[in-house]
Amino acid sequence: MLSELLLTDIARLSAQSKLPLHRQLYEALRRAILDGKLSAGDRLPSSRELTQDLNLSRNTVVAALSQLGVEGYLVSRVGSGTYVNDSVPKSAPCRHPPHAIQTAKLSRRGQSLATTFCADKLEVQPFTPGIADFSVFPVALWQRLQNKHWRMTYPDMLDYSYSGGYAPLRRAVADYLRVFRSVTLEVDQVIITSGTHQSLELCAQLLADHGDTVWLEDPAYWGAVKAFMATGLNLHPVAVDQQGIAPRIEDEATPPRLIYLTPSHQYPMGAAMSLARRHQILSIARKHKAWILEDDYDSEFRFSGPPISSLAGLDADERVLYMGSFSKVLYPGLKLAYLVVPKGLVASFKQAHYDLNRPGQMPLQAALAEFIEMGHFASALRRTRQSYAERRHCLLEALKPCLGAQAYISGAEQGLHLCLRLPAAVDDKALADRISQQGLTVRPLSAYCLKRKDAKGLVIGYGYAPLAEIERCGPLLARAVTDSLTRT
Amino acid sequence: MLSELLLTDIARLSAQSKLPLHRQLYEALRRAILDGKLSAGDRLPSSRELTQDLNLSRNTVVAALSQLGVEGYLVSRVGSGTYVNDSVPKSAPCRHPPHAIQTAKLSRRGQSLATTFCADKLEVQPFTPGIADFSVFPVALWQRLQNKHWRMTYPDMLDYSYSGGYAPLRRAVADYLRVFRSVTLEVDQVIITSGTHQSLELCAQLLADHGDTVWLEDPAYWGAVKAFMATGLNLHPVAVDQQGIAPRIEDEATPPRLIYLTPSHQYPMGAAMSLARRHQILSIARKHKAWILEDDYDSEFRFSGPPISSLAGLDADERVLYMGSFSKVLYPGLKLAYLVVPKGLVASFKQAHYDLNRPGQMPLQAALAEFIEMGHFASALRRTRQSYAERRHCLLEALKPCLGAQAYISGAEQGLHLCLRLPAAVDDKALADRISQQGLTVRPLSAYCLKRKDAKGLVIGYGYAPLAEIERCGPLLARAVTDSLTRT
Repeated sequence: MLSELLLTDIARLSAQSKLPLHRQLYEALRRAILDGKLSAGDRLPSSRELTQDLNLSRNTVVAALSQLGVEGYLVSRVGSGTYVNDSVPKSAPCRHPPHAIQTAKLSRRGQSLATTFCADKLEVQPFTPGIADFSVFPVALWQRLQNKHWRMTYPDMLDYSYSGGYAPLRRAVADYLRVFRSVTLEVDQVIITSGTHQSLELCAQLLADHGDTVWLEDPAYWGAVKAFMATGLNLHPVAVDQQGIAPRIEDEATPPRLIYLTPSHQYPMGAAMSLARRHQILSIARKHKAWILEDDYDSEFRFSGPPISSLAGLDADERVLYMGSFSKVLYPGLKLAYLVVPKGLVASFKQAHYDLNRPGQMPLQAALAEFIEMGHFASALRRTRQSYAERRHCLLEALKPCLGAQAYISGAEQGLHLCLRLPAAVDDKALADRISQQGLTVRPLSAYCLKRKDAKGLVIGYGYAPLAEIERCGPLLARAVTDSLTRT
Repeated sequence: MLSELLLTDIARLSAQSKLPLHRQLYEALRRAILDGKLSAGDRLPSSRELTQDLNLSRNTVVAALSQLGVEGYLVSRVGSGTYVNDSVPKSAPCRHPPHAIQTAKLSRRGQSLATTFCADKLEVQPFTPGIADFSVFPVALWQRLQNKHWRMTYPDMLDYSYSGGYAPLRRAVADYLRVFRSVTLEVDQVIITSGTHQSLELCAQLLADHGDTVWLEDPAYWGAVKAFMATGLNLHPVAVDQQGIAPRIEDEATPPRLIYLTPSHQYPMGAAMSLARRHQILSIARKHKAWILEDDYDSEFRFSGPPISSLAGLDADERVLYMGSFSKVLYPGLKLAYLVVPKGLVASFKQAHYDLNRPGQMPLQAALAEFIEMGHFASALRRTRQSYAERRHCLLEALKPCLGAQAYISGAEQGLHLCLRLPAAVDDKALADRISQQGLTVRPLSAYCLKRKDAKGLVIGYGYAPLAEIERCGPLLARAVTDSLTRT
């Protein structure tokens, strides 16, 4: 069955190209995995069996398999065989769950959580195919630090942490935020969480009741929408413009209990919030005794334009809760993030966080603290920033041919994605679908909108995409956009 | 200031005992930390300064400091000095947050979450003083496995995991549950979470709406109470007896959407649910189309009596969601647990888990998978079980003098705590307070009750308590109970 599939694919490949045989087999197997014909955890026939079935030399088979192993598609397990790796590389089609989602059994809340604003349709991915690239991250150094802290581990480091996280890590975060984000804070106000979603949920659980209103930017970060749906809040979208969120008098008829913002790089459109708007939103928050949740998700990567200081730094009133994470400079699976809360909330947040989330991973926190203190974070940041700047430049160059009166770029000054804005008449969902048929993953801007119908465009991630692939695929993307504009 | 405090304490200690000087300084510093006079993150004077201020020899000071370092009270940081460690050892008084909790600023939900059923009053801790003991856990081996998997790490292992967790780990969990817990399941049904609290919250979010009713055992696990409060459920307590949860006809007037149970070792009273009750509860669930959440939190540690099979193993109707964690055999801060969901829920649970919780930590999951596959989990379990059996035996022996018609033990067949049941007339909260004045931590049974007033007793944790301390403190505990019974 598998052999037949592979033989067909190899025949097709050898007709198309002059790839060496082992490379053809590699491609055929890789495609079978990405298309879901081989699933995570499936056992492969042995190299001996493949040699026979495919009538290839043993060396050819072994070369293909070992390349797939190195790239993480396959994993060998001693005495047991070779398996498709659990976590197969990203590619649009294979991210959908293997089974159709049955919602009939879920609660109404569960149904909305399972079917709207879902990551597999909205999270920004590298637009080019291939394995997500965290190659800039110093794995060997990171391993050395973890080792060191495991050697030094004493029993309490293995227990839950009830103090808001490992103190040296909280100190390092506070130092970083004071210097780079102009946040005025004491170490005690920093709470280490396992991610921004956890930070958001904690804020919603402690500061809002079921049915309370949260103002969100429209379009909005899908993950925040989801966290607020999970905590039963009433979502009130407020449209953003070039200066960020733009509340009107009518909006205040639905007064907020929480205001969720991405002020330094609006997600996903990319506006930096103007100072006037910052003061306006602080004054609205004061008036309605609302809390502002500032999600500073990618401020580490500022490429052009003046640095944007944080809203928390302007807050004289203890109304801003500030959050960020280490997932972009280190790696997403690290699951360490931070939440800075006003002094009056410190004790209740620490206790509820301890009770509800049982935070742990202290040896990992200790390694991260040292990583920051010893300057490795700063150098990793320099390296990643440089590497992402190249990718960004390459993408911007590639997109130039499709830009003009109808199409323009927003939000490229910062972060790991940019937004290609298109006229309101364009069906951006259909365009994104057409582009996905070329194997590229971009997101339609309209899919992030809660209420407004006028925001159209493509959200394009480049941060983790290999430079060579951006060079190859960028022009394909530009051509698809041009075609679509010509047709409209 | 610190010097004066230390000198006073050293003077007191030398009057009381014949401890060597370095040991007196060690005790004085340790007490200052445990009493919160020195807080996590505080910088200590240098050994040179302490030598001068306290008029002790440098060797004395260094000996005391290094002992505190080894025990994890202090941590040295190169070029920066010596600090009170972030995570100071457990002791009842120091677990309270440093600031009083200000609830005025919180939402109503936040106020209940911050003030009721709090971990610092309810989580079962080793009843004896000292550092929690995870000494049985093979740290060196664990570090070796982590290293191995970090060396093998490829980019996707650093990303979020959208497949419900690392496949070999899910396979290992499925194999374990099939053999040891008689759960019938396919690997696909296993979802790796970051803890039972996350498993519970995910179930409540997806299977129940705000205001829906959850049946809980009375008394109940505080963490589950908290998770259901956070997700807006209506708590309906159902009293337990010697056969576990005992629903009456009246209870069905408030039909459940969820039923949360600890069938193999009721938390905290310890009953094992009888087969008749298991069938009764499955039939109630079927009748009301309710889901059963089975929390099998400590079934690894069965010391006497027949093994209790799981409720999930009896479920012919796909109504049971089964959960457990690795925190008791490995260590709590690991933050890896599992949730087994019926087949029809797999896709929606995986997707919502990915969207809401962004699971990661794949290298850690890979190390754990190998730890289990290579038999290390089984040997760790054998070793810990043996070690805990000794502690349990020692505590049971120590408690014998206070047992009789009025006081008896329940729930000692399994787990890492037992319940010392007392007459309904006893004020168990006052008794626990008196016992805490001797430096021992026990929990009043009545504090776990939601509605009933008749359950009195002490919940006593022994799993992580050092054997020598149990020998020393067990008799103190028995005496306090006897005194209290005599007085009542």
